Amino acid sequence: MADYEAILKGKYPAKAHARKVVEYMRSKNKDVSGVLYLEGQKTKMIEDNDGEAPFRQRRFFYYLTGCSLPDSYLTYDIQSDKSTLYIPPIDADSVIWSGLPMSAEEALSLYDIDSVLTTPEITSLSSSSIYAIADQVSTSVSPVDTKLLKEAIEECRVFKDEYEVALIRKANTISTLAHTEVLKRVKNAKNERELEAVFLERCIANGCREQAYHSIVASGTAAATLHYVDNAKPLNGKLNLLLDAGGEYNCYAADITRTFPISGTFSKESRQIYDIVLQMQHVCTNMLKAGALWDKIHLTAHELAIEGLLALGILKGDKEEILKARTSVAFFPHGLGHYLGMDTHDTGGHANYQDKDSMFRYLRVRGNVPAGSVITVEPGIYFCRFIIEPYLKDPAQSKYINTEILDRYWEVGGVRIEDNILVTETGYENLTTAVKDVDEMCSIINGGS
Amino acid sequence: MADYEAILKGKYPAKAHARKVVEYMRSKNKDVSGVLYLEGQKTKMIEDNDGEAPFRQRRFFYYLTGCSLPDSYLTYDIQSDKSTLYIPPIDADSVIWSGLPMSAEEALSLYDIDSVLTTPEITSLSSSSIYAIADQVSTSVSPVDTKLLKEAIEECRVFKDEYEVALIRKANTISTLAHTEVLKRVKNAKNERELEAVFLERCIANGCREQAYHSIVASGTAAATLHYVDNAKPLNGKLNLLLDAGGEYNCYAADITRTFPISGTFSKESRQIYDIVLQMQHVCTNMLKAGALWDKIHLTAHELAIEGLLALGILKGDKEEILKARTSVAFFPHGLGHYLGMDTHDTGGHANYQDKDSMFRYLRVRGNVPAGSVITVEPGIYFCRFIIEPYLKDPAQSKYINTEILDRYWEVGGVRIEDNILVTETGYENLTTAVKDVDEMCSIINGGS
Repeated sequence: MADYEAILKGKYPAKAHARKVVEYMRSKNKDVSGVLYLEGQKTKMIEDNDGEAPFRQRRFFYYLTGCSLPDSYLTYDIQSDKSTLYIPPIDADSVIWSGLPMSAEEALSLYDIDSVLTTPEITSLSSSSIYAIADQVSTSVSPVDTKLLKEAIEECRVFKDEYEVALIRKANTISTLAHTEVLKRVKNAKNERELEAVFLERCIANGCREQAYHSIVASGTAAATLHYVDNAKPLNGKLNLLLDAGGEYNCYAADITRTFPISGTFSKESRQIYDIVLQMQHVCTNMLKAGALWDKIHLTAHELAIEGLLALGILKGDKEEILKARTSVAFFPHGLGHYLGMDTHDTGGHANYQDKDSMFRYLRVRGNVPAGSVITVEPGIYFCRFIIEPYLKDPAQSKYINTEILDRYWEVGGVRIEDNILVTETGYENLTTAVKDVDEMCSIINGGS
Repeated sequence: MADYEAILKGKYPAKAHARKVVEYMRSKNKDVSGVLYLEGQKTKMIEDNDGEAPFRQRRFFYYLTGCSLPDSYLTYDIQSDKSTLYIPPIDADSVIWSGLPMSAEEALSLYDIDSVLTTPEITSLSSSSIYAIADQVSTSVSPVDTKLLKEAIEECRVFKDEYEVALIRKANTISTLAHTEVLKRVKNAKNERELEAVFLERCIANGCREQAYHSIVASGTAAATLHYVDNAKPLNGKLNLLLDAGGEYNCYAADITRTFPISGTFSKESRQIYDIVLQMQHVCTNMLKAGALWDKIHLTAHELAIEGLLALGILKGDKEEILKARTSVAFFPHGLGHYLGMDTHDTGGHANYQDKDSMFRYLRVRGNVPAGSVITVEPGIYFCRFIIEPYLKDPAQSKYINTEILDRYWEVGGVRIEDNILVTETGYENLTTAVKDVDEMCSIINGGS
């Protein structure tokens, strides 16, 4: 299982990525030749301040270099298959304050790159055909095309190689340590922010310097706010905690959600909702393999949600009618998942946010998922007044909802369970090992392990 | 001591700040009238990503509003002494995902503002004289002047009122908890990043959501790199840890540095250097009162450094000659301190980075410090090869340095001790309570308290 550490001892496969990108570009235009040109993110200052703003490497650049240095460039000559990294030169003033920057020799030993020069040497670049990305050219380079390269990298990023999977696995392992620590602390914590702090502490201590996204640490009814960012409410009197948090390791993300009882024991209603969501997650994950239609899996999640809510009496009426009326969107308003990689919502999903069908509008991946893709499976059921109340006012919807029974469930807040799944030719592998079995979770919360 | 909590129950004194700013503007131009116009920071997205970039409120806007909302505006009518805050209107789509935004009523109850409107209403603004800040006007507002308002706020910010001091005190109290926790953990930690994680955990758990600046967690010789940001080196085999870290509370900063032995016991050389720096800090702090000349205090720090290094034999020769030769700059290359407030390096210091005198070039405050200013006192002595070696190669300098004795001190790395000091009419008050007495620090490290 920890074989990923052996893989990570090697270099990030930047050259293989460059070749893959060229292959894609040639599939769109067989005459592609010349040079790929990419820029890393620039050092930026905080406005009206002498401190540096938080740095986040540009993903397009990282994909073809594995290099996290700011203010750097890459050229990749297609014909000769030769990559050149341009890194910032030594600045004598800055050495006094910051020490020596990375040398060309160090860069060569760290990165899968053929040669390393300094950034002023980029001026010597001459090629008739330079492919670059629009608005990401700050030098005198004149690209012939500023669209195809970006499209190519976005599409290639869908297919993760062994090294990328190892990075996501490592981010998952560290994030799982952090999730487990939150379980251990939740009973004695007073405020959401204490748990966010615990999560960050475990991530940073174990090597995830950055978070993959802003954590959601939502207690009680706050869990019904899908993009809750406050993370500062007291836990007293709340039933459950929804923790959606993942660390980033060398630019690769984990994205894990767990929902658990703050007291160490689910209320009856919370457990009922949890079991439905767990079942949705279980069935949907098991549908994954190369070529599986994501839209269909998302639809299945809704069918299971409807069955579950019918069984509890929150929904009433005919399952097929309810599905057709899209009533379940009131309780499960977001998509089942998204690609995961260097971005938490990774590229290549081809969402259609203009979709007139409310059930599919927010689905971030459409169509068939290929082997090698990593996708999140994150069904949820929420009791959000802002979302559900318009349904209650619409007779075409309200006839399927039993408000009397629904009223017992508002305090559940929301339940989401999210794992990161690698799609394979024959099925899938779950990269997330954080516990989600109710007994195991509660045992940890209650100090059992 | 915790009276600051009572002060913080009131509102941030935005109106008083507006009046103070107008008073300054009129001292420069008695005809100033019309409207002050300020914009808060905008919500920005991460490049090529659907997530929001970290948000940091614009300080000029905060000073006149106390409001941390993004995408907001302020107008202050000078004649009528009336302030109006413009906040983002309710966006139905976003409510579904993020819940209700702050209402006008909530804003009125939270902020020291006379009326609250929504941002689209800013178009109705009409005044012949609008004062704004260059490059910080995104609406159709046409300012008559874009310089004076910025200068006025920068100069007024030097003088902290009771509320601002309370905020800095609170940031200091929380940061002190975090510093103390690092002392408790250092003996068992393996890597700098574990200690950075501990520091962040305590800050966030206790209410400092943001750090005032990027922490420096530097072990061994890394402490000699003044802007060390790596924070990822193993502690094994290192003598000391330099921790320069402070949380931010409601936009106000703490900035605290402590240096201590990782083992719980200083080596002889480390203790010698620590004692010199502590003495520098003690004497310089005691020189502070309204009107004290900061340049003179900085000079005193150098005199004490020279005396101390002469006593150890690292320096040799005549004290006055060494001072004149600026040899001590090799060991104490930065300024003694800076104003502290909404920015860690706060406004109004009038540094002269072009100063030809190496001893004063990096001094961030020049001239007399007034009552109400908060300034850091942060002397240090460092053994940084990049900085010292040029001195050793220059005969005019090397004649004052005993390299044989110096060689015993490289492993000390660097020692800095930094407190945040409020200047008063009759003296000063130290806002920083983190321990710096050697016996007390070592007792905590060794598990004594």
